[in-house]
Amino acid sequence: MTEVKAYAAKASDANLEPHKIERRDITADDVKIEIEYCGVCHSDIHQVRNDWKNSKYPVVPGHEIIGRVTAVGDNVKGFNEGDLVGVGCMVDSCQECDSCKEDLEQYCENGATMTYNSPDKHLGGHTFGGYSEQIVVDKEFVLKVPENIDTKAVAPLLCAGITTWSPLRHWNVKKGDKVGVIGLGGLGHMGVKFAHALGAKVVMISRSPSKAEDAKRLGADEVLISTDEDEMEKHQGSFDFLLNTIPVGHDVNPYVGLLKRDATMVLVGAIEPVDPVHGGALILGRKRIAGSVIGGIKETQEMLDFCGENNIVSDVEMIDMQNINDAYKRVVDSDVKYRFVINMKSLKEN
Amino acid sequence: MTEVKAYAAKASDANLEPHKIERRDITADDVKIEIEYCGVCHSDIHQVRNDWKNSKYPVVPGHEIIGRVTAVGDNVKGFNEGDLVGVGCMVDSCQECDSCKEDLEQYCENGATMTYNSPDKHLGGHTFGGYSEQIVVDKEFVLKVPENIDTKAVAPLLCAGITTWSPLRHWNVKKGDKVGVIGLGGLGHMGVKFAHALGAKVVMISRSPSKAEDAKRLGADEVLISTDEDEMEKHQGSFDFLLNTIPVGHDVNPYVGLLKRDATMVLVGAIEPVDPVHGGALILGRKRIAGSVIGGIKETQEMLDFCGENNIVSDVEMIDMQNINDAYKRVVDSDVKYRFVINMKSLKEN
Repeated sequence: MTEVKAYAAKASDANLEPHKIERRDITADDVKIEIEYCGVCHSDIHQVRNDWKNSKYPVVPGHEIIGRVTAVGDNVKGFNEGDLVGVGCMVDSCQECDSCKEDLEQYCENGATMTYNSPDKHLGGHTFGGYSEQIVVDKEFVLKVPENIDTKAVAPLLCAGITTWSPLRHWNVKKGDKVGVIGLGGLGHMGVKFAHALGAKVVMISRSPSKAEDAKRLGADEVLISTDEDEMEKHQGSFDFLLNTIPVGHDVNPYVGLLKRDATMVLVGAIEPVDPVHGGALILGRKRIAGSVIGGIKETQEMLDFCGENNIVSDVEMIDMQNINDAYKRVVDSDVKYRFVINMKSLKEN
Repeated sequence: MTEVKAYAAKASDANLEPHKIERRDITADDVKIEIEYCGVCHSDIHQVRNDWKNSKYPVVPGHEIIGRVTAVGDNVKGFNEGDLVGVGCMVDSCQECDSCKEDLEQYCENGATMTYNSPDKHLGGHTFGGYSEQIVVDKEFVLKVPENIDTKAVAPLLCAGITTWSPLRHWNVKKGDKVGVIGLGGLGHMGVKFAHALGAKVVMISRSPSKAEDAKRLGADEVLISTDEDEMEKHQGSFDFLLNTIPVGHDVNPYVGLLKRDATMVLVGAIEPVDPVHGGALILGRKRIAGSVIGGIKETQEMLDFCGENNIVSDVEMIDMQNINDAYKRVVDSDVKYRFVINMKSLKEN
């Protein structure tokens, strides 16, 4: 084991502070990674604050990890020292269930091991995430990162990116489809970029007229203000697909009205109850509401390759590790365009 | 025009009583039908009582119509005097929109003409349904009824039947699938019969242990009592498809838990808000909730042909037209196994 520097919350009401953690020695199947950048996801804050009632302290958050390989185990092929790699929300899964066999480790029927706050099969205790100097990860959960795109802005692709990419691909969004992206935050801004890159006619749907200009810069063809009833009426029954990134419970019925017959709205943000859905609105158009979480490793690699080929990264604001607590406050206030990324060099200087 | 006998409600609080209505003379495209049997659907009661706030009085309900052809227009091919035919929930649609072109007239983008209480394109006013001696219907909305199955028990196939058949087919329920049918009423009993006939392993899901025996007689392999938490837990994540026939708003979350990853629950009964759905329950299994209404004419004919080949009909209790008001009370009390059918000969004796 090696002791490494990290930042951790020690209790649900505590600020993050410097903390030492142990990383395992690499096994034959492991890749050791020196972390260069780590994105800040809203779920980091939920887990630090124990909003989901399953946090184990100390919590070392961080599941949008970019770094360089510093060592590989004997069984590892395809990764070499110095390679630019990524680690997302998962670091292990059973690899045996139907979901794993279908490259859908995120739905592992025996429970995937999440990058932090999940039982650690190697050391016992729980896993520690990317707000740290280095990490050791099973080779099946390490991703190759294209060298040609802005490395620091790749980090959020590992969660915000794949969370929006996966449903767009699974529901087969294609050239010419009319796609609505609801909510313009960390997830929504990636949804707009990806839907645009896939050739869809993209409508950014938001309550805030102030976001219109930025949405168009990101790739939206049109902006629909959801509080404008006349505009909402004009778009009734016209969408092939809706990607709903709103991170809290809300009234989904106005959006259901926007769907065409047989079209789907996919929730990717609201991990809590949404307001009552009108059964009739679904029934009278054979409409669908679904959910989707992150994506499998194979699909995440496909996304990274696509991003390399199409020069797609996240819009990020860089911070030092020491500013994490202020950054959390700003995330909660939706005051970031569109994702904070920690420059992990700052941790060394701590 | 021809004056014919019917039964109608004159106001939302009124019992149904004898009433004269006008039927149009047949056009070149019409089929004239002497009605022999008409099923009693719960939506008849909703419309008589103006529950959906769109009833026009007098309301002559009835959209599960079986009868014999007595005359055909010059353009009509394939129907001849004496043929046994059916008319379901629709009597016309635009025939030009995408939905109509895809044989999905029930989703006609210009609004299908419903069998009763819909604007009447021919005579003005509104359409009158099957609680009457005869009806004149456009040839495209007349169905051929197999002669080899119990004619009076065919009537409910035109609404309760197709409402359950259509989603089972659209979501491709097949041999070996584990299918749950939630609620055992007019719709549910047909859902069990059809899912069984399609080769699925059928689980009847009900709050009432008293329905277990009957469910098995209808074709269920197993009965799951939804109030038994241990049993519900055992079936978690195991269903390929759920057909939810509960006719009112309710908590769908326990049923969402029963779905496998990527599986769908289809609402066919609850034309009103359902309780808040937990977004996380959809997201963490890429699960889907959808709706579906009746079925297209082509699909309805396929269902009737399948019923002829597999000797499937509804379980019915016959009544005379004069007993309709008592029958409504019993429908509301769920006191019928599983559908009332009016013997329309009784109307002539009025």
